[in-house]
Amino acid sequence: MRSITVLRIGHRIDRDQRISTHVALTARAFGANLVIFTGDEDSKLLNSINKVVEKWGGVFKSYYSHSWREVINSAKSRGDYVVHLTMYGINLPDVLEEIKENFKQKDLLLVIGGAKVPSEVYSLADINVAITNQPHSEVAALAVFLRELLGNSIYNLSFPNAKIFIQPSKFCKKIKRA
Amino acid sequence: MRSITVLRIGHRIDRDQRISTHVALTARAFGANLVIFTGDEDSKLLNSINKVVEKWGGVFKSYYSHSWREVINSAKSRGDYVVHLTMYGINLPDVLEEIKENFKQKDLLLVIGGAKVPSEVYSLADINVAITNQPHSEVAALAVFLRELLGNSIYNLSFPNAKIFIQPSKFCKKIKRA
Repeated sequence: MRSITVLRIGHRIDRDQRISTHVALTARAFGANLVIFTGDEDSKLLNSINKVVEKWGGVFKSYYSHSWREVINSAKSRGDYVVHLTMYGINLPDVLEEIKENFKQKDLLLVIGGAKVPSEVYSLADINVAITNQPHSEVAALAVFLRELLGNSIYNLSFPNAKIFIQPSKFCKKIKRA
Repeated sequence: MRSITVLRIGHRIDRDQRISTHVALTARAFGANLVIFTGDEDSKLLNSINKVVEKWGGVFKSYYSHSWREVINSAKSRGDYVVHLTMYGINLPDVLEEIKENFKQKDLLLVIGGAKVPSEVYSLADINVAITNQPHSEVAALAVFLRELLGNSIYNLSFPNAKIFIQPSKFCKKIKRA
Protein backbone atom coordinates (compact mmCIF):
# COMPACT_ATOMS: atom_id res chain seq x y z
CA MET A 1 0.00 0.00 0.00
CA ARG A 2 1.05 3.58 -0.65
CA SER A 3 2.18 5.58 2.36
CA ILE A 4 0.00 8.12 4.14
CA THR A 5 1.45 11.04 6.08
CA VAL A 6 -0.70 13.39 8.16
CA LEU A 7 0.53 16.96 8.54
CA ARG A 8 -1.11 18.67 11.52
CA ILE A 9 -0.58 22.44 11.21
CA GLY A 10 -0.39 24.94 14.08
CA HIS A 11 -0.24 22.79 17.21
CA ARG A 12 -0.54 24.93 20.35
CA ILE A 13 1.06 23.41 23.42
CA ASP A 14 -1.37 25.00 25.86
CA ARG A 15 -4.62 24.24 24.07
CA ASP A 16 -4.21 21.38 21.60
CA GLN A 17 -2.49 18.59 23.46
CA ARG A 18 -5.44 16.28 23.65
CA ILE A 19 -6.84 17.07 20.20
CA SER A 20 -3.40 16.63 18.64
CA THR A 21 -3.00 13.31 20.47
CA HIS A 22 -6.38 12.21 19.12
CA VAL A 23 -5.28 13.28 15.63
CA ALA A 24 -2.15 11.14 15.90
CA LEU A 25 -3.88 8.09 17.38
CA THR A 26 -6.64 8.27 14.77
CA ALA A 27 -4.05 8.54 12.01
CA ARG A 28 -2.28 5.45 13.38
CA ALA A 29 -5.42 3.37 14.00
CA PHE A 30 -6.81 4.15 10.54
CA GLY A 31 -3.74 3.25 8.53
CA ALA A 32 -1.49 6.32 8.26
CA ASN A 33 2.27 5.79 8.63
CA LEU A 34 3.45 9.10 10.01
CA VAL A 35 2.20 12.31 11.62
CA ILE A 36 4.14 15.57 11.41
CA PHE A 37 3.29 18.49 13.69
CA THR A 38 4.07 22.14 13.11
CA GLY A 39 3.42 25.03 15.51
CA ASP A 40 4.68 24.66 19.06
CA GLU A 41 7.35 22.02 19.58
CA ASP A 42 5.94 19.60 22.15
CA SER A 43 8.02 16.64 23.32
CA LYS A 44 5.28 15.55 25.76
CA LEU A 45 2.93 15.07 22.81
CA LEU A 46 5.45 13.00 20.84
CA ASN A 47 6.26 10.92 23.94
CA SER A 48 2.63 10.09 24.58
CA ILE A 49 2.21 8.95 20.97
CA ASN A 50 5.36 6.83 21.15
CA LYS A 51 4.10 5.18 24.33
CA VAL A 52 0.92 4.08 22.57
CA VAL A 53 2.92 2.67 19.66
CA GLU A 54 5.20 0.78 22.05
CA LYS A 55 2.23 -0.80 23.81
CA TRP A 56 -0.19 -1.34 20.91
CA GLY A 57 2.33 -2.12 18.17
CA GLY A 58 2.98 -1.04 14.64
CA VAL A 59 5.57 1.23 13.09
CA PHE A 60 3.76 4.56 13.27
CA LYS A 61 6.13 7.54 13.53
CA SER A 62 5.64 11.12 14.70
CA TYR A 63 7.84 14.14 14.56
CA TYR A 64 7.96 17.91 14.66
CA SER A 65 8.81 20.24 11.78
CA HIS A 66 9.37 23.99 12.03
CA SER A 67 7.74 24.65 8.65
CA TRP A 68 4.51 23.33 7.16
CA ARG A 69 5.53 24.98 3.88
CA GLU A 70 8.69 22.91 3.76
CA VAL A 71 6.77 19.70 4.51
CA ILE A 72 4.22 20.38 1.76
CA ASN A 73 6.77 21.52 -0.80
CA SER A 74 9.06 18.59 -0.20
CA ALA A 75 6.10 16.20 -0.53
CA LYS A 76 5.16 17.88 -3.81
CA SER A 77 8.72 17.68 -5.11
CA ARG A 78 8.62 13.91 -4.42
CA GLY A 79 5.43 13.70 -6.47
CA ASP A 80 3.10 13.02 -3.53
CA TYR A 81 -0.58 13.88 -3.73
CA VAL A 82 -1.51 16.63 -1.26
CA VAL A 83 -5.03 16.67 0.17
CA HIS A 84 -6.07 19.45 2.54
CA LEU A 85 -9.04 18.54 4.75
CA THR A 86 -11.16 21.64 5.37
CA MET A 87 -14.83 22.50 5.82
CA TYR A 88 -14.41 24.90 2.87
CA GLY A 89 -13.48 22.16 0.41
CA ILE A 90 -15.37 19.98 -2.05
CA ASN A 91 -17.39 17.29 -0.32
CA LEU A 92 -15.62 13.94 -0.29
CA PRO A 93 -18.19 11.89 -2.24
CA ASP A 94 -17.77 14.29 -5.20
CA VAL A 95 -14.01 13.68 -5.42
CA LEU A 96 -13.44 10.29 -3.81
CA GLU A 97 -12.82 8.46 -7.09
CA GLU A 98 -10.33 11.12 -8.21
CA ILE A 99 -8.50 10.80 -4.90
CA LYS A 100 -8.47 6.99 -5.08
CA GLU A 101 -7.03 7.15 -8.61
CA ASN A 102 -4.23 9.42 -7.44
CA PHE A 103 -3.57 7.25 -4.39
CA LYS A 104 -2.99 4.25 -6.67
CA GLN A 105 0.08 6.00 -8.07
CA LYS A 106 1.22 8.46 -5.42
CA ASP A 107 1.90 8.64 -1.70
CA LEU A 108 -0.51 10.84 0.18
CA LEU A 109 0.11 13.91 2.32
CA LEU A 110 -3.01 14.75 4.27
CA VAL A 111 -2.98 18.28 5.70
CA ILE A 112 -5.22 19.27 8.61
CA GLY A 113 -5.57 22.49 10.66
CA GLY A 114 -5.16 24.05 13.19
CA ALA A 115 -6.96 27.11 14.45
CA LYS A 116 -6.02 29.37 11.55
CA VAL A 117 -4.86 27.72 8.36
CA PRO A 118 -2.88 30.12 6.12
CA SER A 119 -4.56 30.68 2.75
CA GLU A 120 -1.39 29.51 1.02
CA VAL A 121 -2.23 25.97 2.18
CA TYR A 122 -5.42 26.05 0.10
CA SER A 123 -3.51 26.82 -3.07
CA LEU A 124 -0.52 24.55 -2.38
CA ALA A 125 -2.79 21.51 -1.92
CA ASP A 126 -3.74 19.44 -4.96
CA ILE A 127 -7.27 19.44 -3.63
CA ASN A 128 -9.26 20.84 -0.70
CA VAL A 129 -11.72 18.29 0.62
CA ALA A 130 -14.61 18.70 3.06
CA ILE A 131 -16.20 16.09 5.28
CA THR A 132 -19.43 18.11 5.20
CA ASN A 133 -19.32 21.91 5.09
CA GLN A 134 -20.28 22.20 8.75
CA PRO A 135 -17.90 23.05 11.60
CA HIS A 136 -16.94 19.97 13.61
CA SER A 137 -13.52 18.42 14.23
CA GLU A 138 -10.28 17.68 12.43
CA VAL A 139 -10.28 14.34 14.23
CA ALA A 140 -13.68 13.45 12.77
CA ALA A 141 -12.66 14.64 9.31
CA LEU A 142 -9.44 12.62 9.37
CA ALA A 143 -11.26 9.48 10.55
CA VAL A 144 -14.00 9.62 7.92
CA PHE A 145 -11.54 10.49 5.15
CA LEU A 146 -9.29 7.50 5.94
CA ARG A 147 -12.30 5.19 6.35
CA GLU A 148 -13.61 6.23 2.91
CA LEU A 149 -10.22 5.98 1.24
CA LEU A 150 -9.23 2.61 2.74
CA GLY A 151 -12.64 0.97 3.19
CA ASN A 152 -13.19 -1.79 5.72
CA SER A 153 -9.49 -2.66 5.60
CA ILE A 154 -9.09 -0.25 8.54
CA TYR A 155 -10.67 -2.97 10.70
CA ASN A 156 -8.00 -5.49 9.71
CA LEU A 157 -4.75 -3.56 9.92
CA SER A 158 -1.84 -5.35 11.54
CA PHE A 159 0.20 -3.79 14.31
CA PRO A 160 3.32 -5.93 14.72
CA ASN A 161 5.01 -6.25 18.10
CA ALA A 162 1.98 -5.19 20.14
CA LYS A 163 2.34 -5.95 23.84
CA ILE A 164 -1.40 -5.91 24.31
CA PHE A 165 -4.47 -6.44 22.19
CA ILE A 166 -8.24 -6.62 22.50
CA GLN A 167 -10.55 -9.53 21.92
CA PRO A 168 -13.75 -7.92 20.60
CA SER A 169 -16.79 -8.57 22.79
CA LYS A 170 -20.44 -7.56 22.76
CA PHE A 171 -20.71 -7.10 26.52
CA CYS A 172 -17.41 -6.75 28.34
CA LYS A 173 -13.71 -5.81 28.21
CA LYS A 174 -11.31 -8.52 27.10
CA ILE A 175 -7.65 -7.55 26.98
CA LYS A 176 -4.86 -9.99 26.17
CA ARG A 177 -1.12 -9.72 26.57
CA ALA A 178 1.13 -10.91 23.79
CA MET B 1 -35.76 9.71 10.33
CA ARG B 2 -35.42 8.27 13.81
CA SER B 3 -33.79 10.47 16.41
CA ILE B 4 -30.18 10.09 17.53
CA THR B 5 -28.98 11.16 20.98
CA VAL B 6 -25.32 11.11 21.97
CA LEU B 7 -24.54 10.56 25.64
CA ARG B 8 -21.03 11.69 26.51
CA ILE B 9 -20.04 10.23 29.89
CA GLY B 10 -17.59 11.73 32.38
CA HIS B 11 -16.87 15.21 31.03
CA ARG B 12 -14.03 16.87 33.00
CA ILE B 13 -14.17 20.65 32.98
CA ASP B 14 -10.39 21.07 33.25
CA ARG B 15 -9.32 18.53 30.62
CA ASP B 16 -12.13 17.76 28.20
CA GLN B 17 -13.51 21.07 27.03
CA ARG B 18 -12.19 20.90 23.53
CA ILE B 19 -12.73 17.18 23.02
CA SER B 20 -16.29 17.46 24.36
CA THR B 21 -16.93 20.41 22.03
CA HIS B 22 -15.64 18.33 19.12
CA VAL B 23 -17.93 15.48 20.21
CA ALA B 24 -20.93 17.79 20.19
CA LEU B 25 -20.11 19.47 16.87
CA THR B 26 -19.44 16.13 15.23
CA ALA B 27 -22.73 14.78 16.55
CA ARG B 28 -24.54 17.83 15.13
CA ALA B 29 -22.76 17.86 11.74
CA PHE B 30 -23.32 14.13 11.23
CA GLY B 31 -27.03 14.05 11.95
CA ALA B 32 -27.58 13.58 15.69
CA ASN B 33 -30.33 15.63 17.36
CA LEU B 34 -29.07 15.98 20.90
CA VAL B 35 -25.98 15.57 23.06
CA ILE B 36 -26.18 14.95 26.80
CA PHE B 37 -23.12 15.36 29.01
CA THR B 38 -22.51 13.81 32.40
CA GLY B 39 -19.56 14.42 34.70
CA ASP B 40 -18.69 18.03 35.50
CA GLU B 41 -21.42 20.57 34.85
CA ASP B 42 -19.98 23.05 32.35
CA SER B 43 -22.05 25.99 31.17
CA LYS B 44 -19.18 27.32 29.04
CA LEU B 45 -19.26 24.09 27.02
CA LEU B 46 -23.02 24.26 26.45
CA ASN B 47 -22.77 27.97 25.52
CA SER B 48 -20.11 27.35 22.92
CA ILE B 49 -22.23 24.61 21.34
CA ASN B 50 -25.30 26.86 21.32
CA LYS B 51 -23.32 29.62 19.62
CA VAL B 52 -22.40 27.29 16.78
CA VAL B 53 -26.03 26.22 16.37
CA GLU B 54 -27.15 29.87 16.32
CA LYS B 55 -24.68 30.72 13.58
CA TRP B 56 -24.72 27.54 11.49
CA GLY B 57 -28.37 26.61 11.92
CA GLY B 58 -30.35 23.51 12.76
CA VAL B 59 -32.15 22.41 15.88
CA PHE B 60 -29.38 20.55 17.67
CA LYS B 61 -29.75 20.60 21.48
CA SER B 62 -27.29 19.98 24.29
CA TYR B 63 -27.75 19.61 28.02
CA TYR B 64 -26.24 18.31 31.20
CA SER B 65 -27.50 15.37 33.26
CA HIS B 66 -26.23 14.39 36.72
CA SER B 67 -26.61 10.66 35.99
CA TRP B 68 -25.61 8.62 32.95
CA ARG B 69 -27.47 5.67 34.52
CA GLU B 70 -30.70 7.64 34.51
CA VAL B 71 -30.19 8.72 30.88
CA ILE B 72 -29.56 5.14 29.73
CA ASN B 73 -32.37 3.62 31.80
CA SER B 74 -34.91 6.18 30.69
CA ALA B 75 -33.89 5.60 27.04
CA LYS B 76 -34.32 1.86 27.55
CA SER B 77 -37.72 2.31 29.18
CA ARG B 78 -38.81 4.27 26.10
CA GLY B 79 -37.68 1.35 23.94
CA ASP B 80 -34.64 3.13 22.45
CA TYR B 81 -31.72 1.12 21.10
CA VAL B 82 -28.55 1.73 23.16
CA VAL B 83 -25.19 1.46 21.42
CA HIS B 84 -21.99 1.94 23.41
CA LEU B 85 -18.99 2.90 21.29
CA THR B 86 -15.85 1.38 22.75
CA MET B 87 -12.58 -0.07 21.51
CA TYR B 88 -13.51 -3.27 23.41
CA GLY B 89 -16.65 -3.87 21.36
CA ILE B 90 -17.50 -5.86 18.24
CA ASN B 91 -16.17 -4.21 15.10
CA LEU B 92 -18.82 -2.19 13.31
CA PRO B 93 -18.84 -4.07 9.97
CA ASP B 94 -19.81 -7.28 11.86
CA VAL B 95 -22.91 -5.70 13.38
CA LEU B 96 -23.83 -2.83 11.07
CA GLU B 97 -26.83 -4.60 9.53
CA GLU B 98 -28.17 -5.54 12.96
CA ILE B 99 -27.83 -1.91 14.07
CA LYS B 100 -29.50 -0.60 10.92
CA GLU B 101 -32.43 -2.99 11.43
CA ASN B 102 -32.90 -1.74 14.99
CA PHE B 103 -32.60 1.89 13.90
CA LYS B 104 -35.51 1.38 11.48
CA GLN B 105 -37.78 0.79 14.46
CA LYS B 106 -36.17 2.52 17.41
CA ASP B 107 -34.56 5.81 18.37
CA LEU B 108 -30.86 5.54 19.06
CA LEU B 109 -28.89 6.39 22.19
CA LEU B 110 -25.20 6.43 21.39
CA VAL B 111 -23.00 6.26 24.50
CA ILE B 112 -19.36 7.38 24.41
CA GLY B 113 -16.68 7.73 27.14
CA GLY B 114 -14.93 9.41 28.93
CA ALA B 115 -11.70 8.55 30.63
CA LYS B 116 -13.05 5.65 32.69
CA VAL B 117 -16.32 4.10 31.59
CA PRO B 118 -18.00 2.12 34.41
CA SER B 119 -18.40 -1.58 33.58
CA GLU B 120 -22.15 -1.25 34.15
CA VAL B 121 -22.34 0.72 30.89
CA TYR B 122 -21.11 -2.33 28.97
CA SER B 123 -23.94 -4.48 30.31
CA LEU B 124 -26.67 -1.83 30.13
CA ALA B 125 -25.99 -1.21 26.42
CA ASP B 126 -27.82 -3.32 23.84
CA ILE B 127 -24.51 -3.65 22.06
CA ASN B 128 -20.88 -2.57 22.45
CA VAL B 129 -19.39 -1.51 19.14
CA ALA B 130 -15.78 -0.83 18.17
CA ILE B 131 -14.47 1.37 15.39
CA THR B 132 -11.33 -0.79 15.29
CA ASN B 133 -9.93 -2.29 18.50
CA GLN B 134 -7.09 0.23 18.61
CA PRO B 135 -6.94 3.26 20.92
CA HIS B 136 -7.79 6.49 19.13
CA SER B 137 -10.57 8.99 19.80
CA GLU B 138 -14.22 9.11 20.77
CA VAL B 139 -14.61 11.88 18.19
CA ALA B 140 -13.28 9.62 15.43
CA ALA B 141 -15.44 6.70 16.60
CA LEU B 142 -18.58 8.84 16.68
CA ALA B 143 -17.89 10.27 13.22
CA VAL B 144 -17.27 6.93 11.53
CA PHE B 145 -20.24 5.31 13.28
CA LEU B 146 -22.67 8.02 12.12
CA ARG B 147 -21.18 8.00 8.62
CA GLU B 148 -21.68 4.23 8.38
CA LEU B 149 -25.18 4.32 9.82
CA LEU B 150 -26.46 7.25 7.74
CA GLY B 151 -24.38 6.87 4.57
CA ASN B 152 -23.72 9.80 2.28
CA SER B 153 -26.84 11.55 3.56
CA ILE B 154 -24.53 13.23 6.11
CA TYR B 155 -23.31 15.41 3.23
CA ASN B 156 -26.83 16.65 2.50
CA LEU B 157 -28.30 17.41 5.90
CA SER B 158 -30.27 20.62 6.18
CA PHE B 159 -29.60 23.16 8.91
CA PRO B 160 -32.53 25.59 8.90
CA ASN B 161 -32.04 29.22 9.95
CA ALA B 162 -28.29 29.25 9.38
CA LYS B 163 -26.83 32.77 9.37
CA ILE B 164 -23.82 31.61 7.44
CA PHE B 165 -22.95 28.79 5.06
CA ILE B 166 -20.11 27.58 2.87
CA GLN B 167 -19.93 27.28 -0.86
CA PRO B 168 -17.66 24.26 -1.44
CA SER B 169 -14.50 25.08 -3.39
CA LYS B 170 -11.44 23.18 -4.56
CA PHE B 171 -9.00 26.01 -3.92
CA CYS B 172 -10.27 28.74 -1.59
CA LYS B 173 -12.66 29.76 1.20
CA LYS B 174 -16.11 30.86 0.15
CA ILE B 175 -18.45 31.88 2.95
CA LYS B 176 -21.93 33.28 2.37
CA ARG B 177 -24.32 35.03 4.68
CA ALA B 178 -27.99 34.10 4.61
